[in-house]
Amino acid sequence: MEIIVQKFGGTSVADAEKIRQAARRVIKIKDKGFGVVVVASARGKQTDQLVADALELNPNPPKREMDQLLSTGEVQTVSLFAMALDAMGYDAISYTGSQIRMLTDSVFTKARIISIDGERIHQQLEQGKVVIVAGFQGIDEHGNVTTLGRGGSDTTGVALAAALGAKLCEIYTDVDGIYTADPRIYKDAVMMKQISYDEMLEMASLGAGVMHPRAIEFGKKYDVTIHVRNSSKEIEGTIITHEVPQMEGVVVSGATIQRDMAKIGLVGVDNVPGNAAKVFAHLARAKVVVHDIVQTELSPEKANLSFMINVSDLDATKEALDKIKGEVNCQNIFIREDIAEVSVVGVGMRSHYGVAEKMFEALAEAKVNIDSITTSEIRISCAVDDDQAEKALVAICGAFELHKPADVRKV
Amino acid sequence: MEIIVQKFGGTSVADAEKIRQAARRVIKIKDKGFGVVVVASARGKQTDQLVADALELNPNPPKREMDQLLSTGEVQTVSLFAMALDAMGYDAISYTGSQIRMLTDSVFTKARIISIDGERIHQQLEQGKVVIVAGFQGIDEHGNVTTLGRGGSDTTGVALAAALGAKLCEIYTDVDGIYTADPRIYKDAVMMKQISYDEMLEMASLGAGVMHPRAIEFGKKYDVTIHVRNSSKEIEGTIITHEVPQMEGVVVSGATIQRDMAKIGLVGVDNVPGNAAKVFAHLARAKVVVHDIVQTELSPEKANLSFMINVSDLDATKEALDKIKGEVNCQNIFIREDIAEVSVVGVGMRSHYGVAEKMFEALAEAKVNIDSITTSEIRISCAVDDDQAEKALVAICGAFELHKPADVRKV
Repeated sequence: MEIIVQKFGGTSVADAEKIRQAARRVIKIKDKGFGVVVVASARGKQTDQLVADALELNPNPPKREMDQLLSTGEVQTVSLFAMALDAMGYDAISYTGSQIRMLTDSVFTKARIISIDGERIHQQLEQGKVVIVAGFQGIDEHGNVTTLGRGGSDTTGVALAAALGAKLCEIYTDVDGIYTADPRIYKDAVMMKQISYDEMLEMASLGAGVMHPRAIEFGKKYDVTIHVRNSSKEIEGTIITHEVPQMEGVVVSGATIQRDMAKIGLVGVDNVPGNAAKVFAHLARAKVVVHDIVQTELSPEKANLSFMINVSDLDATKEALDKIKGEVNCQNIFIREDIAEVSVVGVGMRSHYGVAEKMFEALAEAKVNIDSITTSEIRISCAVDDDQAEKALVAICGAFELHKPADVRKV
Repeated sequence: MEIIVQKFGGTSVADAEKIRQAARRVIKIKDKGFGVVVVASARGKQTDQLVADALELNPNPPKREMDQLLSTGEVQTVSLFAMALDAMGYDAISYTGSQIRMLTDSVFTKARIISIDGERIHQQLEQGKVVIVAGFQGIDEHGNVTTLGRGGSDTTGVALAAALGAKLCEIYTDVDGIYTADPRIYKDAVMMKQISYDEMLEMASLGAGVMHPRAIEFGKKYDVTIHVRNSSKEIEGTIITHEVPQMEGVVVSGATIQRDMAKIGLVGVDNVPGNAAKVFAHLARAKVVVHDIVQTELSPEKANLSFMINVSDLDATKEALDKIKGEVNCQNIFIREDIAEVSVVGVGMRSHYGVAEKMFEALAEAKVNIDSITTSEIRISCAVDDDQAEKALVAICGAFELHKPADVRKV
């Protein structure tokens, strides 16, 4: 029996009517002869409510207990979902992470999946049942409940598809699919029909929400096609899949914007081996996520080191740098808080010239000053003034014709 | 380490402040050097809300899914409870029924406990932690979540106390203890300092709420003293324990009232062996709970059979009797719906004469007509007109001086 995994996010199961709507989508696939495994998130704002309940009792709740608490939201959804299917005349059975032995490590609140026991699910599917699995949660080897972090239900969905040998994981959400750019800023953005795992990974880590990066990694690694689509509309969404030859014909697939960044510059650091390592080891210990590291030589003895962080990590960064400043002989630290980053992403860049040039030209025409530039194989990012960031994104989108479907673009 | 189990009902953990209050009671015992195991119910009206959510999707939800759903309420309480203790500087760990392997049969929504694995709890207690266990829930041998039925957290508490070798299980609730009669009807009722398991069992099954009969049976069987007390007050409540000699000095410990009863009379049933069995087998199959069966001989060939049921079971009863009527050759069926039952309970009855006489006198003086009488070794019950029931209870309470503490009564 061919299996399809359908993942429904919190907005898609927010109330009884939404759950019924989701159940009807399940039935549509089931009636075609597929084995259907549903992964569901907590209903609407349930998780937020539980977090609020916890913080009212303890501003710093033990993480094990937080996971035990939050896991209940998804369990409620899956049992209700099974009841809805039963009322529509379809046999269904709900499972918690513990019941399908979704084994994870013991890093509470952001556990990683180690293995999944697909046996019980296969048995139920063979009996003709729809299997509903609580997303976002697992158990560690001691039987403690763990959670995979926010957005973890995407990961559950794709990981389950991989474990069960399903070729397709549908991610139902409240948007139509993945857009070439954030439509709230670039109104003419269009939905992509498809995007490669690598592009989606770049876009997801550049702040284009919708999909959790870890879920995309799972899909890439285990060859699971991911279909992001709207749970309220009968339309196709965006397919995330392996790179296919025609993708290279598209130079730029999408553009992103990341606000609330800060740029840190360490001036005149001793240019000796190990100094950069020392700096970033301290930042890692302080749990600061660092982007776009650039080191430039000032003299044979001295170097400048710069990197970007999220503004929310600024205090932790300052504290960490204070400790290490003397050790690496840093002359001065510059901090710029009003910075944003705009980026273009596309696997076509590998085989096309002039992408960077076109991007810089567009920014120059829009009179946006570029603070600094970083690139990967399939991405170019420019740091710009935060108050020019939206203008910058719109200019870039125009230059790469991101208002048109990929197959009719001229650039 | 001596262990005390403290069970907190839904009203005692209804919100953050109530949970903190409960946690302070735990700390008070813990600081005295006891190992403390907490059993908690779902917060306030959470279970009712979940039932409503379920019924909105399915008027007849599958019981397995209902148990999966309802079990989440208790899990939320125990993790929040552990967080509250952590915030007060005390190490705590919460467990689901599954995590402590509270093994039950597979009768969903009213499962019975088979065994409990106390090992993990003992380990945590030895490490100085407070252990918080979700009440009301277990798992069956297949790993399905089960629940013990409403009030099942009492059973969890007493069963855990038995499994862990704890001598005492405190049941915290929103009343001060067990009263000689329902104070809403008999305003002068007083709280009992102590009551025997057998008396409490009679009273609980006669509708005096507070404690779940199964929990009392566990306590009796495994020698666990139960202390029912108010979670908001620093006062002693009612101790439920084995019969002690001075209890026999008290003739009547309490009086109860059961409303909403119906009396069924089968007239002229063939008086041959097996006919009564046939009737009650059919009623049992229809899940009707039957009280106070009386059979009287009408002639050598014919008998009358009467019994009491709850009015809510009347339709099921009529249906079951229609099927069997011909088979047992019943001439006529009488049904009386406006019936209530008043009872007195006391182990002292075994060694005192004249209890029934005093009860009937009291009812006669109050001009209450007695429809029928049934007795057990420690109980006398009279069926009366429902609209005379409250007057009957007040008369009986007065006759047995149930407004006075047991040790100063003259009767």
